[in-house]
Amino acid sequence: MDVKFINPFITATLNVLKTMAATEAKVGKLYLKSGKKSTGDVTGLIGLAGSGKKGSFAVSFKESCIKKIVSNMLGEEVAELNGDVLDAVGELTNMISGGARATLAELGIDFDMAIPTIISGTGHELAHITDYPIVVVPFKTEAGEFFVEACLK
Amino acid sequence: MDVKFINPFITATLNVLKTMAATEAKVGKLYLKSGKKSTGDVTGLIGLAGSGKKGSFAVSFKESCIKKIVSNMLGEEVAELNGDVLDAVGELTNMISGGARATLAELGIDFDMAIPTIISGTGHELAHITDYPIVVVPFKTEAGEFFVEACLK
Repeated sequence: MDVKFINPFITATLNVLKTMAATEAKVGKLYLKSGKKSTGDVTGLIGLAGSGKKGSFAVSFKESCIKKIVSNMLGEEVAELNGDVLDAVGELTNMISGGARATLAELGIDFDMAIPTIISGTGHELAHITDYPIVVVPFKTEAGEFFVEACLK
Repeated sequence: MDVKFINPFITATLNVLKTMAATEAKVGKLYLKSGKKSTGDVTGLIGLAGSGKKGSFAVSFKESCIKKIVSNMLGEEVAELNGDVLDAVGELTNMISGGARATLAELGIDFDMAIPTIISGTGHELAHITDYPIVVVPFKTEAGEFFVEACLK
């Protein structure tokens, strides 16, 4: 199995957070997901499809982490998970998957992106229904953790 | 705006529940979503993309409702939201969106489907990030409510 497709997602995540939110993130050790036990408080999810490819990309934030990131993006303190936060997560999800898509297209791996959906709800869990491996990449920021999950068939 | 694209999703939902789970559902009055305030306990979500189309399909169940549906599917009582329930929601999501896709393809509306993702967590909320209208269809079953949301651009 080749998990190289994940690298453009990692690079895009770091770039987007740095340029959009002045946030440095540290990449943890990636692993393959088994079970549904990675949980977040706010998740951006986008389907990948077309050109014979099928996939899914998610970026899931702990509440403290995303509040700090969106505060940086907006230039003002964000106290709760309001509509501004959901919009910002949508924008981040689009930008990260768009960046990864552009890099993968250069490598001959093409797909289209669906509409992003933002899920909110403390400690919700995600399960991608596929027999393909799902790669999870944990990230750490000063304000808390988030993780990226991706699968591309 | 033309919301006719929703009809194949409604028909496929009724058919799949009837044939797979011997469950009759009543279609409520559909409405356009504003805000993120439709909530479920288990949601199947699938991105639609390709051929110049972008969209998202979700089916979201209250806990009592999906436990009854999956009990019918498996022929044994399901007491909690376990892995069997998540797999069943994945299967229902695939079958409903696949059925709708086939009908829409006959009308010349083509798209591919991403990998379905199942979200669990009591009362989580969904926000689709798009400037296009999102159509919500509420359904009622003997064991509780569920709703379908779809957007196709």
